[in-house]
Amino acid sequence: MRQSKLFTKTTKNLSKDEKSVNSRLLIKAGFFDKLMAGAYSYLPLGFLVFKKIENIIREEMNGVSAQEILLPSMNPRKLWETTNRWRYKEIFKLKNRKGQDFALGWTHEEVVTPLVKKHVHSYKDLPVAVYQIQNKFRDELRTKSGLLRGVEFMMKDLYSFHKDEKDLNKYYEKVKKAYFRIFKRCGIEKETFLTLASGGTFSKYSHEFQTLTFYGEDLIYVCPKCKIAINKEIIEKQKYRCPECNSKKLEIKKTVEVGNIFKLKDRFSQAFDFNFRDKDGKEKKVLMGCYGIGLGRLLGTVVEVCHDDKGIIWPKEISPFPIHLIALGETKKVKEKAEKIYKDLQKAKIEALYDDREDKSIGAKFTDSDLIGIPVRIVVSEKTLKNNSFEVKKRNEKKIKLMKLTSLEKYVKKYIK
Amino acid sequence: MRQSKLFTKTTKNLSKDEKSVNSRLLIKAGFFDKLMAGAYSYLPLGFLVFKKIENIIREEMNGVSAQEILLPSMNPRKLWETTNRWRYKEIFKLKNRKGQDFALGWTHEEVVTPLVKKHVHSYKDLPVAVYQIQNKFRDELRTKSGLLRGVEFMMKDLYSFHKDEKDLNKYYEKVKKAYFRIFKRCGIEKETFLTLASGGTFSKYSHEFQTLTFYGEDLIYVCPKCKIAINKEIIEKQKYRCPECNSKKLEIKKTVEVGNIFKLKDRFSQAFDFNFRDKDGKEKKVLMGCYGIGLGRLLGTVVEVCHDDKGIIWPKEISPFPIHLIALGETKKVKEKAEKIYKDLQKAKIEALYDDREDKSIGAKFTDSDLIGIPVRIVVSEKTLKNNSFEVKKRNEKKIKLMKLTSLEKYVKKYIK
Repeated sequence: MRQSKLFTKTTKNLSKDEKSVNSRLLIKAGFFDKLMAGAYSYLPLGFLVFKKIENIIREEMNGVSAQEILLPSMNPRKLWETTNRWRYKEIFKLKNRKGQDFALGWTHEEVVTPLVKKHVHSYKDLPVAVYQIQNKFRDELRTKSGLLRGVEFMMKDLYSFHKDEKDLNKYYEKVKKAYFRIFKRCGIEKETFLTLASGGTFSKYSHEFQTLTFYGEDLIYVCPKCKIAINKEIIEKQKYRCPECNSKKLEIKKTVEVGNIFKLKDRFSQAFDFNFRDKDGKEKKVLMGCYGIGLGRLLGTVVEVCHDDKGIIWPKEISPFPIHLIALGETKKVKEKAEKIYKDLQKAKIEALYDDREDKSIGAKFTDSDLIGIPVRIVVSEKTLKNNSFEVKKRNEKKIKLMKLTSLEKYVKKYIK
Repeated sequence: MRQSKLFTKTTKNLSKDEKSVNSRLLIKAGFFDKLMAGAYSYLPLGFLVFKKIENIIREEMNGVSAQEILLPSMNPRKLWETTNRWRYKEIFKLKNRKGQDFALGWTHEEVVTPLVKKHVHSYKDLPVAVYQIQNKFRDELRTKSGLLRGVEFMMKDLYSFHKDEKDLNKYYEKVKKAYFRIFKRCGIEKETFLTLASGGTFSKYSHEFQTLTFYGEDLIYVCPKCKIAINKEIIEKQKYRCPECNSKKLEIKKTVEVGNIFKLKDRFSQAFDFNFRDKDGKEKKVLMGCYGIGLGRLLGTVVEVCHDDKGIIWPKEISPFPIHLIALGETKKVKEKAEKIYKDLQKAKIEALYDDREDKSIGAKFTDSDLIGIPVRIVVSEKTLKNNSFEVKKRNEKKIKLMKLTSLEKYVKKYIK
């Protein structure tokens, strides 16, 4: 994409209200715009990152045989009364002109359970796993964390349905692994801890995926001996001792919760009377699991983890573009060469952000490039062309390399792999 | 995809409330589920069709240099008061716990205009075109038309910003052409008429794209001489005469509106005081256009147009799968051969719906296949295998052809192109 055509611009002027690292950087760099507290607009660069994350999640969900669906955000009140959750203060409620009541979904057990019930009657129809990627709504009082906590946010929610606990447990472990693949591909695997959390009245534990960040809102407690992490709620119950070895030597760390997985067991199949006929001819309750990842929150967390004082440093697989091509200087020679490189990359199906802006100084182009944070920067200038070369610099390294123009496509292709 | 793994099933039991052709067929065939009046859940097959339509629209929007963004559905009241539209009865309104008021967007001029204003200051920054694909909300009283009219529905909304009328007009014509490409790729080009509609107080006309269907809710008036279509509102003003030739010999046709394009001119740049500095140094108001397509409505309209008494007949480019592979009979030989074909297709990156269900009769499999409506059906049975052959039948033809198994992949690849 030509940067001269990108309608957004980087900005230095930021509201003082904008306190979080993620939203400050993402707004400055032109990835997002703030509409109001807790609600952000995805601009072209932010939308590209979102699509990359969405694609990773979609691939990994399809990889655990989950089928993609899309449920309405507006839900009739009756469904939420059936599960006794209509009373929840976090749910946005509204009325239509006829006076009927609706909830705006912040999770979708109330819709997905009766839906799957219509199609599942026998043990032969199980297991079933369905997911969706969708905007959710939540009447959130704390909205100071940028993309980490909003009144409207993108979620992937997966629901699984099983004939017995063994099958539920097996699938739960499968999803756990898929989640770590997602966080690895998004570049935050090393910082992300599987963390014991409350399982409600149904399981001993559920699991949160907690990512270490300097300004994290959550606290986790890590036992260095057992290599397990425990969330605040559980550790308080445990009187600040490791549930495995009983040690009190725990490390406290600030984190952001990027995902959670939960065995719902028959909590919702009870409410909706969702039975199946088992092999032995008996009617039994279906068992369920649910598994969430907030996509906007994940994107924001990546920025909290991957940045420096100059700007964002995108992990390769979710960068809006793999390459930032910059033409420096206004001479005809530079312009022609940069255009040719850009077109050659397009032909080779390699998307690059191409800084072809004519009214920007060298300093402004480099400052913008560091702020936007594409992992590889390729510069063509009078100076490099004298040697038939281009300059290449990785966003997370200081070293600048001069390479022959003839090797450019090969270098880029190797890097992208 | 293996049909045995698809969690949805076809059904014959349909609520009598379900009156429209599109929703009756789409629910029977397992593409959609009705959550409540005016709100449908996309099931795996329906979601696949949706994604194909979305992809076509995305390609055509990118083709007219529009940049994709995503705006929050929840909008603060103040924006809608600025344009004097907060009073509209069709807008769903809600409050948060702090008592603040919000609208659920049914269109997004109120959000996109101040957003683009932040980035556009000079004639050099224009034109700009941005679009999004998103669920919209509308407090709709008539909800009997299935996917054609809902309280929650998927929309593509494009907004363009220009320095003068000439540039707006040029872009408007470009989008008109892109819309016809979209309707062509979705298989309803022949039935779709560009129709003169009211331009509000700003333009003489806007344009609707109206598709002929047997049960259409709208009426259009076609002048066979001038080959133009006029909507009801305009033709009443014209006293039922063609605005070109003044003839009263007009054909009346039932239609569904699948898209509309509108020159907003300075309606919203006035409201938000959105100026730019022109080449002559003067401050001028930005001119806008807006362009909508309802994706769910388009999907429903395709079904209204493309079906017979047995089920849906998907146009090639938006079918959930290009091929329906059916294994008939339980013998080992049939099973092995069908499995091999399915895997060979997968290797060749050709997605097929593979009816590998073992508990279904030949009749049930054919009935389901006709109902689901994939354009090409490939059958492997004891009988065909005796001749090392497969049977191929197109959904919209009666003829059944027997072809050699060795030519299967070649046949499919040629068909897909």
